[in-house]
Amino acid sequence: MNLSAVMHSSTVPYRQPLARNLLHFRIFTAKDDCSSVTLHYWKRSEPYPESLHTIPFHIRYMDGYQAEWVGDAILAEEAHYIKYFFQLQFADGQERYYSEYGFSREQPQLGCFEVLQANETDVLSVPEWAKGSVYYQIFPERFAAGNHAKTLHDYVTWNAVPTRENYFGGDLEGIKNKLPYLHQLGVECLYMTPVFTGDFNHKYATTDYFHVDPDFGTDDDLISLVEQAHHHGIRVILDGVFNHCGIHFAPFADVVANGKASPYSDWFYCKQYPLKIDPEYYECVGDYPYMPRLRTANPKVREYIVSVMLHWLQTAHIDGWRLDVADELDTATVRYLRERVKAAYPDALLLGETWSDASRMVCEGDQFDSAMNYLFRDAMVDFFAKDRINAQELQNRLSHMLMKYPDATNLCMYNCLDSHDTARFLTEASGEKGRLKLAIAFQMLFPGSPALFYGDELGLAGENDPDCRRTMPWEQPDNELLQWTKKMVHLRRHNTAVRLGEYHILQTGIPDVVAFERCYNGERIIAVFNRSVLPQTLDFTDAVGTVNVLPQSVEIIQIP
Amino acid sequence: MNLSAVMHSSTVPYRQPLARNLLHFRIFTAKDDCSSVTLHYWKRSEPYPESLHTIPFHIRYMDGYQAEWVGDAILAEEAHYIKYFFQLQFADGQERYYSEYGFSREQPQLGCFEVLQANETDVLSVPEWAKGSVYYQIFPERFAAGNHAKTLHDYVTWNAVPTRENYFGGDLEGIKNKLPYLHQLGVECLYMTPVFTGDFNHKYATTDYFHVDPDFGTDDDLISLVEQAHHHGIRVILDGVFNHCGIHFAPFADVVANGKASPYSDWFYCKQYPLKIDPEYYECVGDYPYMPRLRTANPKVREYIVSVMLHWLQTAHIDGWRLDVADELDTATVRYLRERVKAAYPDALLLGETWSDASRMVCEGDQFDSAMNYLFRDAMVDFFAKDRINAQELQNRLSHMLMKYPDATNLCMYNCLDSHDTARFLTEASGEKGRLKLAIAFQMLFPGSPALFYGDELGLAGENDPDCRRTMPWEQPDNELLQWTKKMVHLRRHNTAVRLGEYHILQTGIPDVVAFERCYNGERIIAVFNRSVLPQTLDFTDAVGTVNVLPQSVEIIQIP
Repeated sequence: MNLSAVMHSSTVPYRQPLARNLLHFRIFTAKDDCSSVTLHYWKRSEPYPESLHTIPFHIRYMDGYQAEWVGDAILAEEAHYIKYFFQLQFADGQERYYSEYGFSREQPQLGCFEVLQANETDVLSVPEWAKGSVYYQIFPERFAAGNHAKTLHDYVTWNAVPTRENYFGGDLEGIKNKLPYLHQLGVECLYMTPVFTGDFNHKYATTDYFHVDPDFGTDDDLISLVEQAHHHGIRVILDGVFNHCGIHFAPFADVVANGKASPYSDWFYCKQYPLKIDPEYYECVGDYPYMPRLRTANPKVREYIVSVMLHWLQTAHIDGWRLDVADELDTATVRYLRERVKAAYPDALLLGETWSDASRMVCEGDQFDSAMNYLFRDAMVDFFAKDRINAQELQNRLSHMLMKYPDATNLCMYNCLDSHDTARFLTEASGEKGRLKLAIAFQMLFPGSPALFYGDELGLAGENDPDCRRTMPWEQPDNELLQWTKKMVHLRRHNTAVRLGEYHILQTGIPDVVAFERCYNGERIIAVFNRSVLPQTLDFTDAVGTVNVLPQSVEIIQIP
Repeated sequence: MNLSAVMHSSTVPYRQPLARNLLHFRIFTAKDDCSSVTLHYWKRSEPYPESLHTIPFHIRYMDGYQAEWVGDAILAEEAHYIKYFFQLQFADGQERYYSEYGFSREQPQLGCFEVLQANETDVLSVPEWAKGSVYYQIFPERFAAGNHAKTLHDYVTWNAVPTRENYFGGDLEGIKNKLPYLHQLGVECLYMTPVFTGDFNHKYATTDYFHVDPDFGTDDDLISLVEQAHHHGIRVILDGVFNHCGIHFAPFADVVANGKASPYSDWFYCKQYPLKIDPEYYECVGDYPYMPRLRTANPKVREYIVSVMLHWLQTAHIDGWRLDVADELDTATVRYLRERVKAAYPDALLLGETWSDASRMVCEGDQFDSAMNYLFRDAMVDFFAKDRINAQELQNRLSHMLMKYPDATNLCMYNCLDSHDTARFLTEASGEKGRLKLAIAFQMLFPGSPALFYGDELGLAGENDPDCRRTMPWEQPDNELLQWTKKMVHLRRHNTAVRLGEYHILQTGIPDVVAFERCYNGERIIAVFNRSVLPQTLDFTDAVGTVNVLPQSVEIIQIP
């Protein structure tokens, strides 16, 4: 009986309304320590203990150390004045009640936990379409060139090696031409890195948020790209870079010109005047003076950002925003952006960039619907590409990750294998295609929203930035990889169990073999991944029976 | 080594900026499980591991099961791109490193925790004046009558028994007359339950937020009361009842008159039209139809509330607001109110009502500065009034409570012994004055903001509402209690260690004797409380030596 490991308090993320009449509860215990967990609740206005309702909890996830028990209270009306406590049955036969006052052997009379109101704005909700959606990320300068008449740069040949400076001529017209390709691949949502006027080939130093960069085309090109994508059943989200801008952004240029007298001096974190393009003079991204940080705590800056976000939702009918370095934005600003955007476009997706734990960004439902899930990516690299961890460690890492977020959020998490900011997965795997295929299969079958990075499906390799931003190998595609990716995307898209189902780990006992099942309304799909160069045999005790898995391959079993 | 009990994630409340260059960290372990905890951090842009900084943690509080370890990283500039991990030395001699990826025997290379930015709006701050302040709560109808010419009700005699309906004639003029009394008592901040026009003698069903209820006087009376209180060095906070209103509140009356066509129909949670005064027709407080809930998620309602809050800050120069049933308000609204109020009045206090864990209201610094601390009250009743728990249980309960909140917040918590919504402490203690005296001493010496409920200091008794709302016994004061209270308030006000000092539990080993010390810059004050009817002797091994405590009394030792 490990009482020190029991964690609950009557706050998010331990209890949360999923609807005004649906309360979701979580409590953590040490792994394998409890045999059952029960929640007892009653309405404060009703007699106690006669009116007690009882909810048996179940384990949602377990990592190496903890078990997360969950349960839902479904009420006849909006929740208010609910009092509750837990009953814990320990594996050693002991039993305890748990309330605000701690543990007791008797059912508590005082000090029970409480839920006062389940208010509408406290309810966690994510866009329904985003649950389990398949993303495709494009770096526009490198995907496809449509307008070959552009003369804005000295373009290098399409197959040249990317540098931080060179340009290849990719544009929106090129992307538009390839929509049938994306449609056939099965993509459901396109995420493009920045397309607005900005410095550098990556455009992360925005200078005009209201216009498409001439390198990529016109505003009309963007509008028509989104329109045609929608015709292909593909949604589009754009990259909003609101933590910082480029030095030629008009307000910043005004402060450079006019110093403290500029009406925009409080739009930035200026340290001394006159401003020089130097990190000593203003806060910027790290020590990089070409990206001055916007002072988002300033209400005028917030309003400006809102106006940008609403403008493109309205004029281009985009389906949402990915916010760059979302974890560096101040929390109050993000909450404000969400309120304003969701008031007008409740179905717009808000996806935040982060590289680690995204709890504070997604768990309360007041900031982002989803976050880039590099914790997932890192686990994939460590298990499938690098053999740094074994199957048990992988499962622990993934469970620890899944435990962080509500179910609905887990289904929306942007599960990538790589991006424009990492080495390509194929390169992490030393070019071993079989490992990439396993990772793609895993990604497509795992809970969440699998995200392809342009070209992975055609065998694109590359070290970290700038090398991961090579051009799309339209002339030398790896057709085997492409077919494999299509097949896996197809599996994801046509199985509700894969898209929305519960996730259960299957213990394999083999360090190189990881297995799980997804279940939804009697549909069941089992996937067994063998990363080793030897065949493996597993015996599942239930209906599945014996499963043989070839070297570096995945066995997928659908029931029924 | 109890790894299952180790809790940290890179989110509030486990890490939080206390200034843009000051990061506060917390990690929980099982009680007595670790002998040391160390945090290692470095700036991502600097070489690892050469640039590691090391912070030895210390235990802030321990309850019956867990130890809370804390440490601060003070940086040369605004925190950004900080990576960190923990090193845990266990009492059994084992050692582990702890990072996002879990536990390892070696210093982690990957999966470290991160702090991206410490943004200005993410910094926790509370009004400096509110730290350790002494409150005095008044129920205006029962404190003192100033205007004896009022004829609004059939007033009962001052010493009559209070009912839910009767009126005694207390008013603002009466309070103003008693300001010298409050000043002599040592009160620093007055909290008045509602004074605005409203139904019932308690005025919690507001009908006009912009005017003082005629029962209590005029708007000018309020303005002049605050002005004179300030002359006596006493701040004033008012009770804002924004979760609900009274049925004669003009917008609600309009919906009653005009149904769905009313421009105010979305100010309430109406279920069917035409409205009847009946809980089936709209959301109200419990099943009480005379208090319809305001739909605070409606931006118009929010603006209205802001206008009320700012109006009285501006016209009457009040020092802050206590928000009624703050835990029933929707979180987004509270955050919005705070932003607007603090933008204009950064020093205004925001105090929220709740009856249990206030974490979600105060920990992030984005809602309330303080909360009514009934967890403290309940612990006082259970130990000093009812003998329900022993000294060890009391300390565990209080430590569990203190562990919930940041240090600055703990100093602001509204630590009451009773209120207009509970039985009087003296009544809980079956009239035993000695127990009340001990509780008052404890309250005044404990970390937080001790809050007196009018009349407790004169020996007022009473069961829960309406009996706890008896009139002030100006004619039969208990002078011994009054002198005792003054003495304790004096101790609080003239010792920085009591107001702001660290809190350390002193183990007594005696179930009836609880002891602690408060320390601040070498100042030290020790308090030993003996609730039993027998004298007790304690041996402290340090400079304090032997302490004898008489029956039902407190021994207070100041060093130096």
